[in-house]
Formats: sequence, structure tokens, C-alpha cells
Amino acid sequence: MPQVTTLKNAAERLVEIGRDFHRRGWALGTSGNFSIVIERDPLILAITESSVDKSRLRAEQILCVDGSGKPLEGVTGKPSAETLIHVAIARALNAGAVLHTHSVWSTILSDFHAGRAGFFIEQYEMLKGLRDVHTHEHREWLPILENSQDMEAISTQVTLLLTEAPVPHGLLIRRHGLYTWGSDIDEAVRHVEILEFLLESVGRRQMMEPPAL
Amino acid sequence: MPQVTTLKNAAERLVEIGRDFHRRGWALGTSGNFSIVIERDPLILAITESSVDKSRLRAEQILCVDGSGKPLEGVTGKPSAETLIHVAIARALNAGAVLHTHSVWSTILSDFHAGRAGFFIEQYEMLKGLRDVHTHEHREWLPILENSQDMEAISTQVTLLLTEAPVPHGLLIRRHGLYTWGSDIDEAVRHVEILEFLLESVGRRQMMEPPAL
Amino acid sequence: MPQVTTLKNAAERLVEIGRDFHRRGWALGTSGNFSIVIERDPLILAITESSVDKSRLRAEQILCVDGSGKPLEGVTGKPSAETLIHVAIARALNAGAVLHTHSVWSTILSDFHAGRAGFFIEQYEMLKGLRDVHTHEHREWLPILENSQDMEAISTQVTLLLTEAPVPHGLLIRRHGLYTWGSDIDEAVRHVEILEFLLESVGRRQMMEPPAL
Amino acid sequence: MPQVTTLKNAAERLVEIGRDFHRRGWALGTSGNFSIVIERDPLILAITESSVDKSRLRAEQILCVDGSGKPLEGVTGKPSAETLIHVAIARALNAGAVLHTHSVWSTILSDFHAGRAGFFIEQYEMLKGLRDVHTHEHREWLPILENSQDMEAISTQVTLLLTEAPVPHGLLIRRHGLYTWGSDIDEAVRHVEILEFLLESVGRRQMMEPPAL
Repeated sequence: MPQVTTLKNAAERLVEIGRDFHRRGWALGTSGNFSIVIERDPLILAITESSVDKSRLRAEQILCVDGSGKPLEGVTGKPSAETLIHVAIARALNAGAVLHTHSVWSTILSDFHAGRAGFFIEQYEMLKGLRDVHTHEHREWLPILENSQDMEAISTQVTLLLTEAPVPHGLLIRRHGLYTWGSDIDEAVRHVEILEFLLESVGRRQMMEPPAL
Repeated sequence: MPQVTTLKNAAERLVEIGRDFHRRGWALGTSGNFSIVIERDPLILAITESSVDKSRLRAEQILCVDGSGKPLEGVTGKPSAETLIHVAIARALNAGAVLHTHSVWSTILSDFHAGRAGFFIEQYEMLKGLRDVHTHEHREWLPILENSQDMEAISTQVTLLLTEAPVPHGLLIRRHGLYTWGSDIDEAVRHVEILEFLLESVGRRQMMEPPAL
Repeated sequence: MPQVTTLKNAAERLVEIGRDFHRRGWALGTSGNFSIVIERDPLILAITESSVDKSRLRAEQILCVDGSGKPLEGVTGKPSAETLIHVAIARALNAGAVLHTHSVWSTILSDFHAGRAGFFIEQYEMLKGLRDVHTHEHREWLPILENSQDMEAISTQVTLLLTEAPVPHGLLIRRHGLYTWGSDIDEAVRHVEILEFLLESVGRRQMMEPPAL
Repeated sequence: MPQVTTLKNAAERLVEIGRDFHRRGWALGTSGNFSIVIERDPLILAITESSVDKSRLRAEQILCVDGSGKPLEGVTGKPSAETLIHVAIARALNAGAVLHTHSVWSTILSDFHAGRAGFFIEQYEMLKGLRDVHTHEHREWLPILENSQDMEAISTQVTLLLTEAPVPHGLLIRRHGLYTWGSDIDEAVRHVEILEFLLESVGRRQMMEPPAL
């Protein structure tokens, strides 16, 4: 039972992140869901409860689920509807944390590029904030999945997507927002900041005319 | 005299909301007005005073009005000029709280789409934050009323609008902003966050070119 | 010597406003200058010192000037370079406070519409936040003056502008920002919020396509 | 050994700046790096450590490097990868502080105008916030260098750029952000605020149609 962290520590961190992301416009309404792996083999995740207001997130709203996404015995409250996606990502990539944000820019770019099922982000220095990227001469494919209320279907697609090389650092769900992850929660938070920055840059860049000269 | 909440509780909450909404740019100048139903049969609302600065809102600026929008006996201060709209919504939908915000995006989209008296918001996951919406495959018609200084006229139109099915979750007044509501104040606040997010998304999406490919 | 307020009270309020306006992006760098009339007949203004950082504004950086814009005897420090404009407005309109902000939207709209020396803002509900405006069916002409480093020349133009009816509630200087005022400092602050909101709304509205239908 | 300031003072100030710039979106992920000259002849800079989160910057993450960009004896931790650029600027201009920010607007404008290797910013009053600029009738050329991971190559180009007159007040690296500097840290911070404001203004101005009339 290799414990990675405690529920208490994970819950404290997710509460802090939830409130911060709400303030930054990335988890408005009851949107956004966040998880930290607390044990492996078998897998246990600490994840945000379904439909809670992130601006007032409390530690009791962080629940433990097993590797099939079911609440552990004794857990009261319903885990996030998107728990299966978190589990799929934690399994496929051995990730230590998974974060789903729901910003304006991820929402509209996931719609704009939906016809191609993704788009490239390239030549930006900020890409170097992504794990194992060491140069701006990197070409990141950000995949887009069609949205669905069938979480088993989406999580299966996510698993498929993450078993093909090159593995992306995040993915979009159409008109729904961003999923990203990291080997630990710090890296996952950094990936949110990096990808949200890149999405805003790509979006605003496109609203300008073609290059001068 | 079924009491829903006390004036004291309602006032504390509205003060907190007023300051927060001001900070977020949704109630600048003296714009915005907010109410909570504190009794039903007969109806009593706690509502913000007319023309007050929401960044410095105080509990004494929350006044009680009856079901015709008139201040209760002994109340000093003038209730919001738009009190009749709050009463119309509280009556038509049995709402527990009504919030009127005045953001940039609601202002310009209510003008852009005024010729069609409204517009659809659809296929956004964030729609699920609206009461009784359980899928992004929802088509929300956001109606727009022409602005007027005749509050009786507007409130009559609001009542008419809300008696036709499907009942919307909010409505715009042209170049004037958003009205939304909820069964209680938490739901109404969530509806503001959801609708303001959707308005910004719809507005920015439209400023991009047509979809790629 | 009709005293309106004390230097101490005026300085405390301007310090609070300076820090708040800096945070909101309206007084970055050393931009922005703010004054409150503290005596009339003869006129004395409390005004921000030249070239100070508004994010760290201190009460000692608020200086007294007379009706010709000169520092009172014993004052150390140089009053804002734009003191003459404040004096011109205080004299022409009997204003109690004058605020100059320097936002992105005021900067670019003052350039976009410079060829016409101003533009109309009309049919916005938010116009009702301006003094003596009681309906959205108001047509506010926001005049634009060409920028200059000759403060006597600008202040003369400001005086001329404000002696013609209808008197505007604010004015722009090209690529330089907004001047507005009020009978007291609360009204002047409200006018800044209202006009900055309207400028952002007008600017973003224009970036959308023509109305649907 | 002319000491300009102490490491302790420099570190305190850079920690405060790092957290503030992160909050303003200018140093997300692990982007941004900041330095203050603490000694001259020989040159010693206090500079941010490589790859640290600026929202949680601590004084121990500010390291001393010499005039060749190497850590002083006894320093643990790796200085910013871009240390050579800071040294090049401090040497070429005798600057007292160098700040590199990474905003959305600097990122996209450095790309939009890359074909011309720079662009002019002119006629903006805000230009007067730059050192030795006394009128809006100033024409500031903001040079753009192609991005590279070869820091020696970039720092050589920076040195060349800064030895030609007129010396700019800042420079962009393509899709990478802004470098600016000052005779001391206060001036450098002011230059960041001024240039970021101007970049946003220039960017948004360009998104509007050509001037009216």
C-alpha cells in the first residue's frame, strides 16, 4: 500500500487550489474538479465532491474514490461526475494529480478547432513550462474530444488518446474546458497556468490580423 | 406568515454579494440591485436601496418591500427603482432571490442581438449549472427586452415572458444588463456566475473567425 | 473663506483612491492625477504631487495649490504637471473634485475617434449614473482634445469646452485618457466608474460585427 | 567594491515583485526572471533562481552571480537560465535592475511584428513614464529578437542592440516576452508597468477598425 500523501494534506491543497482557481475565473458556478492520488496499487484518489461551489470549498468536500471511481467505504457525499476521467488519466499516465478547469478561452478554442479534433501550439517559450519540454521549438498537439454526458465513453476515449505517442500535456473537451495533470500537484497546477496562458495567447493572437509586412 | 429568512440574514448576505459583484465589475457606479424573499403569503422582499454604491453597501441599505413593491411601514429610504421587476419575478416563478447585474458583456450582447429579441446559448457544458439542466445538449433562449424607464411596463413584460414555456433562467434588458434568479440566494448567485461566463464566452467566440477547416 | 473640507481628509481620500485606481489599471506608472477642492473664494485644491507612484501614494504627496495652480506658501514638492487643467475644471463648473485616469480603453477610443473631436455615448442605462441624467435616452457627447505638453493651451481649451452647452460629464485627451469631475469626490469617483464602464462597452461593442438580423 | 545595495534588501524587493507580477499575469508558471545589481566593479547581481514559482518566491531563491553570469562561491541553486541577458543589459547600460516579464500582450505582439524586427510606439502620453522621455511626441522603437535557447547568442545580440543609438527602453523576444530595465529597481518596475500598458493599448487599438471619419 504505497501511500503518496494523506487525505488531509490532499484536501488542504485542493481547497486552496479551488478557491484560487475560482477567483481566477477557471472554476465558476460549480464547474471544475480536482484530484490528487493518495495511494497506488491499489489506486486511491482524493477528489472534489460533485456540484460544489469552489469559492467556498471545504476539506470535507474532498472524497476518496478507488481505481474504478467508486467512493471508498464509509464515504458520504457523491464524488465529481467526472471522476472516471480522473481515474483514466491517473492510470494511463501514472499521474499524481489531475485538474479540470473551465475557462472562457479553453471553452471557445475547444469549439473553434473542434472540426480538426485539436490544434498545435508551437514556438512559444511558455511551452517550456510543460514537463520534459526544453525548447520553444516544440510542437504541442492539444487534442479536443466531443463533449458527452456519458462519462464511461469519454473516459475510454481519454485512455485511448493517452496511449498513443506523443502523449499530450493536456486535452480539451468541446465547449467544456481543459484537463491537465502532473507527476504531483505542483506540476499539475503549473500545467494549468501554462496552458491557460497559451490558450489566451493563441486566442488573442488569432483575433489580430495576419502578421505585419 | 411563512417566514423564509430574516431581514438580518438577508441583509448580511446581500452586503457580501454587493461588494463581491462590484469588485468583479458587475455592479459599478450605483448599478445592480439584489433581493431576497424573506416572507411569502403575503410576499415580503429584502431589496437594495436605490442609487447606493455597492462597493460600500451596508446592512441598513437593505429595505423591506411588500408584494406591490412598496416599502413596509416604518421603512426609511427609497427601494431600488427596479423593485417592481424583482416582485414580478418573485411572483411569477416563486423565486427566492432575484439578482440584477450590469456587466460589459451583458450590456453589449443585449444590444447586438436586440433585433431578434433574444438569442440561444447551446451546447455549452456550463449550461448544466442552471437549475434543472442536466446536459450540455440544452438550448437556452435568453430573451431581451427593450429598455424603458417605465418600470410598470417592463415588469408587465417580464411577467408575460415568464408565463410562457419554456421559462428561461435569465433575461436581458437592452444595453442595461442581466436579471436572473433562483429558488434561494445561493442558486441565484450561481446563475449569475454561469450566465456571465456564458455571455463572455459567446461574445468572445463571436469575435473569432468562423471555425477552422 | 468657505472651507469645504480639510487637507487631511482630502489627502486620506485621495490616497485611498490612488491605490484603488492603480490596482484597477487606471493609474499605472506615474499616470493619473486627482484633486479635491478644500476651499473656495479664493480657490484652494488638494492635488497629487507630480510623478508619484499611485500604488504607494502617501498623504504627504497631496499638495495645496491656489486658483492659479501655484503651490501655497510653505508647500514643498511639485504639484502635478496637469494642475492647470484641474483648476480650469474646478473654476468653470464649480466642481468639488477632479479625477484624471489613464486606462487602456480611454486611451484607444480617444485615438480612434480623434478625427471627429469626440463621440456620442447613448441609449446605455449606465448613463443614468452621471449627474442629472435620468434616462438611458440620453445622448452624451464625450469631447476629445488633441494632446499637448503646453498645459496653458490645454487648460484654455478645457475652459472653452466647458462654457458651451451642453456641458459634458467628462472629456478625453487623445492617447492620454479621461478627465471627469463631480460636485464632490464621491460623485467624481462614480463618474470615473461609469465612464470607464461605458468606454469599455463602446470599445468592445465596436469590435463585434454589426447587429444580427 | 562600490556596494549599491545588500543581497537581503534586493531579495526582499524581488520577492515582493515576483508575487505581484505573478498576480498580474506577468510571470505565470515558472516564467519571468528579475535581477538587481548589488555591487559594481566587479559586477554582482542578485537574480531569481531558475524555474521557481513566482507566486511563492522566497528570499532564499534569490542568488548572487558575477559579471560572467556564474554563481558566486558558496551559492547553492542554479541561477535563471537567462542570467546572461541580465548581465549583458547591466553591463551595456549600467542598469541597476533588469526585469523580464512574460505577458500575453508582449507574447503576441512580439510575434505579430516579428517580420520587421520591432515596431514603433508613438504619440502616447504614457511614453512619458519612460526615463528621459518628456513628451508624448516621442517615437519609441521596440526591437524584437528571434527566440533561441542559446543564451550566449541572445545575450550577444542584446549587447549589440544596446550599443546602437537610440537606446530603447525595452526589448521583446519573439513569443517570449519583454525585457526592460532601469537605473534602479523602482524605475525598472515603472518601465514594466508603462510598457505592458502600451503593449495592451497598441494591441487592442489594432483590433479596432481604422479611425472613424
